[in-house]
Amino acid sequence: MDLKSLIRAVPDFPKPGITFRDITPLLGNPAGLRSTIEQMAQQCQTLGLAPEVIAGIESRGFIFGPALAGQLGIGFVPIRKPGKLPAAVHQVSYELEYGQDCLEIHQDALSPGSKVLVVDDLIATGGTAKAAAELLEQAGGTLLAYGFVIELTALAGRAQLPSVPIFSLLEY
Amino acid sequence: MDLKSLIRAVPDFPKPGITFRDITPLLGNPAGLRSTIEQMAQQCQTLGLAPEVIAGIESRGFIFGPALAGQLGIGFVPIRKPGKLPAAVHQVSYELEYGQDCLEIHQDALSPGSKVLVVDDLIATGGTAKAAAELLEQAGGTLLAYGFVIELTALAGRAQLPSVPIFSLLEY
Repeated sequence: MDLKSLIRAVPDFPKPGITFRDITPLLGNPAGLRSTIEQMAQQCQTLGLAPEVIAGIESRGFIFGPALAGQLGIGFVPIRKPGKLPAAVHQVSYELEYGQDCLEIHQDALSPGSKVLVVDDLIATGGTAKAAAELLEQAGGTLLAYGFVIELTALAGRAQLPSVPIFSLLEY
Repeated sequence: MDLKSLIRAVPDFPKPGITFRDITPLLGNPAGLRSTIEQMAQQCQTLGLAPEVIAGIESRGFIFGPALAGQLGIGFVPIRKPGKLPAAVHQVSYELEYGQDCLEIHQDALSPGSKVLVVDDLIATGGTAKAAAELLEQAGGTLLAYGFVIELTALAGRAQLPSVPIFSLLEY
């Protein structure tokens, strides 16, 4: 299925000159939503990846991560903004274009050494995905691979990430 | 499957005296995650609900909504915090215990009259779920029902909601 036809380009969001790739038409399309999850599962198979758990990054990683985990028959671990996870956490700060942001994971989220696929809707500069890798390491997991729905190739986010397999379904 | 055994009680979160019902052990358990989605789909069948789309409330509604939509073969519409949705939105403000909050939906998110199941992880006072109903109406949809994983019955959130079917998998 042609998923790209279900991605809407919204000009000047979040600021002038930026074209935002909007996934909401994809999500609202039953065949598109289902096919996205199936294509991510297919990518895992093609690359020979056998993740033991999926980690998804708040908020849009939550949209695809648990559905893919269900498809693969594995569990899901949320990586969240500060102050949202109730038990003891590991925390990592990372640089944004302006200022910095922070992500957290439960300290007991992962079995030691468990192989983690990090899922998010989109990779841009890669800063968030890189921070997720640091969190997984702190929590005792092993980063197995990254999976994204959309990759903004001009921003070269891939180059910022650890040397593990990385797949994306759609490139811009 | 006994999902309740996979919900962790975290005392004094987010503030002293509150017991937080933590779903992360449930999410991390492959059978638990899958069974949660299946039990929500089963509830729809038992209640004779045939939603045409699922709306999920940021952020934890994103965890269950798309997976359930995939299971039911329908689409998913995100209801988000302000400033996150890129195209034209409807907006609703609602009261919290202290101050107020705001939610948004894309104006073109729903086909006119489409029957919507609102999904969230938990219903407490019902304020957020009620706000979601107002948004769906503004966007031209029809509220069909609500589905929650957890219901905090002492807070009587159900009584705040429109008179449509409401199901929850676990009560506290």
